[in-house]
Amino acid sequence: MLFAVRMTVRIPSDLNPEVRADLVAKEKEYARRLQREGEWLHLWRHAGKYANLSVFDVADNERLHEVLWNLPLFPYLEFEITPLAKHPSALA
Amino acid sequence: MLFAVRMTVRIPSDLNPEVRADLVAKEKEYARRLQREGEWLHLWRHAGKYANLSVFDVADNERLHEVLWNLPLFPYLEFEITPLAKHPSALA
Amino acid sequence: MLFAVRMTVRIPSDLNPEVRADLVAKEKEYARRLQREGEWLHLWRHAGKYANLSVFDVADNERLHEVLWNLPLFPYLEFEITPLAKHPSALA
Amino acid sequence: MLFAVRMTVRIPSDLNPEVRADLVAKEKEYARRLQREGEWLHLWRHAGKYANLSVFDVADNERLHEVLWNLPLFPYLEFEITPLAKHPSALA
Amino acid sequence: MLFAVRMTVRIPSDLNPEVRADLVAKEKEYARRLQREGEWLHLWRHAGKYANLSVFDVADNERLHEVLWNLPLFPYLEFEITPLAKHPSALA
Amino acid sequence: MLFAVRMTVRIPSDLNPEVRADLVAKEKEYARRLQREGEWLHLWRHAGKYANLSVFDVADNERLHEVLWNLPLFPYLEFEITPLAKHPSALA
Amino acid sequence: MLFAVRMTVRIPSDLNPEVRADLVAKEKEYARRLQREGEWLHLWRHAGKYANLSVFDVADNERLHEVLWNLPLFPYLEFEITPLAKHPSALA
Amino acid sequence: MLFAVRMTVRIPSDLNPEVRADLVAKEKEYARRLQREGEWLHLWRHAGKYANLSVFDVADNERLHEVLWNLPLFPYLEFEITPLAKHPSALA
Amino acid sequence: MLFAVRMTVRIPSDLNPEVRADLVAKEKEYARRLQREGEWLHLWRHAGKYANLSVFDVADNERLHEVLWNLPLFPYLEFEITPLAKHPSALA
Amino acid sequence: MLFAVRMTVRIPSDLNPEVRADLVAKEKEYARRLQREGEWLHLWRHAGKYANLSVFDVADNERLHEVLWNLPLFPYLEFEITPLAKHPSALA
Repeated sequence: MLFAVRMTVRIPSDLNPEVRADLVAKEKEYARRLQREGEWLHLWRHAGKYANLSVFDVADNERLHEVLWNLPLFPYLEFEITPLAKHPSALA
Repeated sequence: MLFAVRMTVRIPSDLNPEVRADLVAKEKEYARRLQREGEWLHLWRHAGKYANLSVFDVADNERLHEVLWNLPLFPYLEFEITPLAKHPSALA
Repeated sequence: MLFAVRMTVRIPSDLNPEVRADLVAKEKEYARRLQREGEWLHLWRHAGKYANLSVFDVADNERLHEVLWNLPLFPYLEFEITPLAKHPSALA
Repeated sequence: MLFAVRMTVRIPSDLNPEVRADLVAKEKEYARRLQREGEWLHLWRHAGKYANLSVFDVADNERLHEVLWNLPLFPYLEFEITPLAKHPSALA
Repeated sequence: MLFAVRMTVRIPSDLNPEVRADLVAKEKEYARRLQREGEWLHLWRHAGKYANLSVFDVADNERLHEVLWNLPLFPYLEFEITPLAKHPSALA
Repeated sequence: MLFAVRMTVRIPSDLNPEVRADLVAKEKEYARRLQREGEWLHLWRHAGKYANLSVFDVADNERLHEVLWNLPLFPYLEFEITPLAKHPSALA
Repeated sequence: MLFAVRMTVRIPSDLNPEVRADLVAKEKEYARRLQREGEWLHLWRHAGKYANLSVFDVADNERLHEVLWNLPLFPYLEFEITPLAKHPSALA
Repeated sequence: MLFAVRMTVRIPSDLNPEVRADLVAKEKEYARRLQREGEWLHLWRHAGKYANLSVFDVADNERLHEVLWNLPLFPYLEFEITPLAKHPSALA
Repeated sequence: MLFAVRMTVRIPSDLNPEVRADLVAKEKEYARRLQREGEWLHLWRHAGKYANLSVFDVADNERLHEVLWNLPLFPYLEFEITPLAKHPSALA
Repeated sequence: MLFAVRMTVRIPSDLNPEVRADLVAKEKEYARRLQREGEWLHLWRHAGKYANLSVFDVADNERLHEVLWNLPLFPYLEFEITPLAKHPSALA
């Protein structure tokens, strides 16, 4: 089941630089693992912004919540979430 | 070069039903042709809405304009356009 | 899987009264059938408005789309859709 | 009398972690008590967000105010409040 | 139980003038009757606008819905509804 | 001359608790004095929010400014101000 | 007593041209009369827009309402109204 | 003196096609003439939209108003106007 | 050349009181000087708010920028800027 | 390929003045270098604001991202990005 998620990153400028670097590294590792496992289907940067457009392929809403809630940068992220369905004009 | 485009369809309720059916059929044909040719990379329905999330892979801004401007339903579409770039955490 | 849906009804004031009455009657029948079948879990009126708050219990995003798209009043409805998950403080 | 309440949690990132943990624990206890007593009728998580959709069944506006005002996390919550009424298409 | 309601009137400019005059007259009669009966507690014009601020004193949300839904101009009104409670600094 | 004023209170969470308690006490005293003197005509709580709806009866705009500017909590208040006039459907 | 009023003109494109010309002429005459009488203190065009910024000097809110309500173009105007007071840094 | 102007075109779908074609042709002629005369400095299409970003170089606000007001499509255009000044980091 | 400027003051509550008092005094002196010199044509307080409506009469956009940029409170001000032109209904 | 970018600068008022001066100097140097190299085509100040309108001429979305991401003030900038295309009414 697909969900489009736009994430905007808002890390406070006074966050400890080491804490920040650690969180960003963990976020990268987390993103790569979920891509390899097939749940994080697409991950694109919004050109010119600290933001991304992602598409997730998860079992249900519960799993979507779990995946997003456990993002290492979760406290600094704003989400716009859109449930997706098959489009009648899409190729099979 | 990738662009995310959210399209919302607002066909006036007093549009002639035959004109409408014709436009919708042409839109479908147009969408399928661009998907086969590789420029319309993804096409998902927003669940529950007359709207979609599309990703286009085009040569440049000029071609993006041409592709959208020639949509048969163009006069009845609202677009939100986001240029995309490669994300540093995306798998190769 | 639960979704909260806020629906606002915007029927054009120049819609033929008989067409309107027919659509409203079909909408009621449709809503009652889906409630009996268990997919339309809750349906509350927004006090003072031509709008409602609904909770749907559907198999997945595809079914959510199908249920909303087939509402007899669909062309005149605005939707705000929120995927729901279990809350850790909710009683079992 | 029913009210739908959307709550978004905005705890400042510099809040003392012990104070925070204590408030969150008290909030959970408070939510469970009001659910057992029947005033907090529904409590769902917004999938992927630190937010919930709740439905309260209270005697009147005064009691609604009292219930929300006494939430342990009240200073960090944003509310969107909608008075609900019976819908003519709802099953009895 | 008190509710503040801001009403903005948007009568289409092509409404038949006699129909309009009739609706406005009925609206006035309705407003005066509810004021006499004590449910429409306050009614003020927004200076310079076709809009008003009203305070209703009704038994519950169901009655609030009934009162607003039956306004003769209901199809042309936009409502902003706020449930009110006693303020701790208000004089008894 | 009547003005409706919606006030939303936004006291920073790091304000010294004694300073805060002192300001809140002074605000209450100020509100009660102006109610007794007849300029603060109505004061209602927005149910569930740290906000109120007030109606002031003042000599002119200058006095409205003076009354609001001198609120002890003024630096932490957001105002939405609406000049009111007599409504043609209001009872005398 | 001063009020700043921003007016935006939205005349429907299908209004009868003669009716429109007549309304615009009456609006001009009305504006000039109130300027001569001293109540319409300033009237500036928003450069590039069918909109203006006006300052009125009226006795009270009732008179402000009367002045705006009687504008010949009233049904096609949107107003943003701001009560003004003397600024402490303004020259006498 | 420079002004950035974003123009969005909203021609009603029921406008007579000949009238429309005539207006669009006149708009093009008008735009080309002002470009040749040096007042319409830049004119770019918003990729994918019926909208443009223009930069005008005019004598003053009066002339800006005159230039925009006389656009053949003026009744169907929405403007966002920004006065520009020299940037301290711009090359001479 | 006239510009309407709405200024909203947002001084952080933790600004050093002496620094603040000094800035406010310099702002007053600056405003009075520009009024005497004829560039700051009007200065009104928004009744009940820490905000003002000003009208400036300056040579061009460059000078408008210079005047606003040099306001002692500039870092704490939000501006809404509107270029003005002569209105055809204004008295000479 | 052209992109219009509106940048608004929001430097926190508690940023160390030397750090700030250093960043602003580096930003200026960076802007001048990209202008000389032809990628930063236009750079105008929004009159009266700490903001600019820029037009970039870059190879593709990837390069746009690189150029903006490396702005020394990037963490304090808000961007509004618009892909541009040739306008049919623009002179060659």
